[in-house]
Amino acid sequence: MKQLIKNVHLLTMDTKMTEIKQAYVLIEDQTIAQIGEMTEELPEADVVTDGQGGILMPGMINTHTHAGMIPFRSLGDDVPDRLRRFLFPLEQFMTPELVKSSTKYAIAEMLLAGVTTFCDMYYFEEEVAEAAVEMGMRGFVGETIIEMETCDFKTPDDALDWTEGFLKRWSNHPLVTPMIAPHATNTNRKEIFERIVAMAKRYKAPISMHVAEMTYEMTEFKEKYNQTPVAFLNDLGFFNERIIMAHCLFIEESDWSLLHEQRSNFGIAHCIGANTKSAKGVAPVKRMIAEELNVGLGTDGPSSGNTLDLFTQMRMFANFQKTANEDRSLFPAKEIVRLATEGGSRVLGLEKLVGTIEIGKQADLTLVETQSVNMFPIYDAYSALVYSANSSNVSDVWVQGQHLVENKQLIKADLNVLRENLANEMTVFVAEAKKRSEAI
Amino acid sequence: MKQLIKNVHLLTMDTKMTEIKQAYVLIEDQTIAQIGEMTEELPEADVVTDGQGGILMPGMINTHTHAGMIPFRSLGDDVPDRLRRFLFPLEQFMTPELVKSSTKYAIAEMLLAGVTTFCDMYYFEEEVAEAAVEMGMRGFVGETIIEMETCDFKTPDDALDWTEGFLKRWSNHPLVTPMIAPHATNTNRKEIFERIVAMAKRYKAPISMHVAEMTYEMTEFKEKYNQTPVAFLNDLGFFNERIIMAHCLFIEESDWSLLHEQRSNFGIAHCIGANTKSAKGVAPVKRMIAEELNVGLGTDGPSSGNTLDLFTQMRMFANFQKTANEDRSLFPAKEIVRLATEGGSRVLGLEKLVGTIEIGKQADLTLVETQSVNMFPIYDAYSALVYSANSSNVSDVWVQGQHLVENKQLIKADLNVLRENLANEMTVFVAEAKKRSEAI
Ligand SMILES: [Zn+2]
Ligand SMILES: [Zn+2]
Repeated sequence: MKQLIKNVHLLTMDTKMTEIKQAYVLIEDQTIAQIGEMTEELPEADVVTDGQGGILMPGMINTHTHAGMIPFRSLGDDVPDRLRRFLFPLEQFMTPELVKSSTKYAIAEMLLAGVTTFCDMYYFEEEVAEAAVEMGMRGFVGETIIEMETCDFKTPDDALDWTEGFLKRWSNHPLVTPMIAPHATNTNRKEIFERIVAMAKRYKAPISMHVAEMTYEMTEFKEKYNQTPVAFLNDLGFFNERIIMAHCLFIEESDWSLLHEQRSNFGIAHCIGANTKSAKGVAPVKRMIAEELNVGLGTDGPSSGNTLDLFTQMRMFANFQKTANEDRSLFPAKEIVRLATEGGSRVLGLEKLVGTIEIGKQADLTLVETQSVNMFPIYDAYSALVYSANSSNVSDVWVQGQHLVENKQLIKADLNVLRENLANEMTVFVAEAKKRSEAI
Repeated sequence: MKQLIKNVHLLTMDTKMTEIKQAYVLIEDQTIAQIGEMTEELPEADVVTDGQGGILMPGMINTHTHAGMIPFRSLGDDVPDRLRRFLFPLEQFMTPELVKSSTKYAIAEMLLAGVTTFCDMYYFEEEVAEAAVEMGMRGFVGETIIEMETCDFKTPDDALDWTEGFLKRWSNHPLVTPMIAPHATNTNRKEIFERIVAMAKRYKAPISMHVAEMTYEMTEFKEKYNQTPVAFLNDLGFFNERIIMAHCLFIEESDWSLLHEQRSNFGIAHCIGANTKSAKGVAPVKRMIAEELNVGLGTDGPSSGNTLDLFTQMRMFANFQKTANEDRSLFPAKEIVRLATEGGSRVLGLEKLVGTIEIGKQADLTLVETQSVNMFPIYDAYSALVYSANSSNVSDVWVQGQHLVENKQLIKADLNVLRENLANEMTVFVAEAKKRSEAI
């Protein structure tokens, strides 16, 4: 099937950052087949979308989230040690059905905000993978492996055993890439990490993990191993595989040369909104980029960052990086949009498939309307996306050529039904959550 | 006329922070006449709005902006020394018609985002005042007085002479409060400031000014007067009048006791989005609050902060203050919503009139819908407003009892017409702006 998107301000995000102010894009089945100027004769198509001068950009890539955690949103946001007071204790009430309905809801939220790929680690990830397929979303999906009893598995070994089957079941799926997802550098023992590296090598599976996020993580590593988490991972051979490291707030001087050398084997999921809401700090992204590392943007879970869209992250990123580095011209808007798209694709190792609008790539596309009051005037489309836009400006979204959002509405799912299903699954969880809130 | 707003989650923001989860509010003409629970018998009314469980809060107060500057939005955002390269040179192309159409557009944008009062300083402020009245918006309005030739006046003395007439013309207007608006502490000579204080005293007019915003401002004061801008203003008697100080990024230790003493006579318009986008820094709001100062939120102009809504500011405020103070529980969401509403009213000295939902106060109200995907679940309505919501969630707005926004649409104005008028007035400006962009 041929779909024509015409009359758009096209940001390709290709190497030359090609921008066509009055463009069309032709989708053939799953891929981008043709790109041109509106002055040319338009190709024939089965379906035509008139972009009305809106901005067409690559679908955004959320490189780190926990889509199952919608039930936690707005709960105990400003409470100290929220992780141990709310998140861990309430996770025992998570069920496969709750995670699945939460993930479908979260995917709806991401799609409506122009996100076309998400990278997820949580519990009941079989259901997360199924949710991605049902919603038509591109996903990197991994079951959390952690040294404690969880709602899903008694031990990290059990979770890892299960992961092996998961990797086999979902190998070569067109939308879902299964991952191995150890929780964090300090929440598993060394033997588990060794098994993980071996399994990653055997199945060529990507690994996703929280790295250098917590001050206590850094202290523990210093005391226990007298090295940094990054050096620890390197010693274990993680950088011979493909690893997606979330956060990397605390990179020590000795880590940089190692990271620079290994840069083709990992990506960093930078979650500025979550990191700063929890007062953890601002990751050294200026240096990361100088060291040519792959950096993308992530939201972290809906309980940590509260939003799942990358507009919030782009705006936060601009203001935090400029301020932290005392340089208003650092990271111009264009560079930030690149992080949210092409940068994210390189973090996941998907750069040949998505992240830019180029002929032959998958048609993962986001159309941002410029009719709303906040989108005028536009001298610079990148500036408009970073500094003015919010997720409500997304009008149309395609994933793998499937038109999933049209005129700000989901096409293949009903938001009210998704919310109702989620609310129904949340009954027990909410009762327990309220008990804990009232105890404060 | 009686208007009933029923079925809302009411945040009154009164001294007790009264919250009614299923409430109604009755408006009688311009004022709030009755507040109650949905279980009570509902009062009769001429018009009924069903809030469908949305959050009803006091209209938000944007304590500092330059509404005439919409034509600058997205122009040269990441360029160093943007003020001197873009803003000052292009301001010569501002006309009364352009400022008026820009201001009407900016007011539309603010209303659609739930802002019901704005505090503005720019050029052609007669037109700004008229725009406020035509749009039904509450405004504090002052002509910029600056030691250079502007698009409006040859000298600051001329601007000040004109301001005297302006203060007389608009005295006791129900919506518009005229102000005296010296540009900044370092852009006027001492004699002008003396005239301003005398005029403020004579007409009981508020003063609005940029204070302690620039590092070079601080250096200049040190060299020229060997004192801080705050001490300088105090010596001139500014704190015997009512002054709205925008920014106050650089408060020195010696200033704090003075500010604490004078706190009933001034307010601080804190513009976190603009301050950090331009890498100027994070104002010491924790200390300001500890010193019991009046603090409200502001967006600064649409060229500085790009958005005119306070949702962007609330979210930025949370993340920046928590991170700067390394305390995730500092400024809980409730406190931030207070700054955007009641805090703003105290900055403007309007606390008897607006800023909370209480019987007898003006009906300046904002209804935020909770149907959109980003607004579920809600354990804490303040959290939802600060961490999840964006301006597109505002569904209804009343100013002084006038229903101005209904179902996310302006009632008394047509956004397309406002944009067309503005675009028409921008022709010359845009041509000049493009010349300057290309020269970079
Ligand atoms: Zn995470
Ligand atoms: Zn300003």
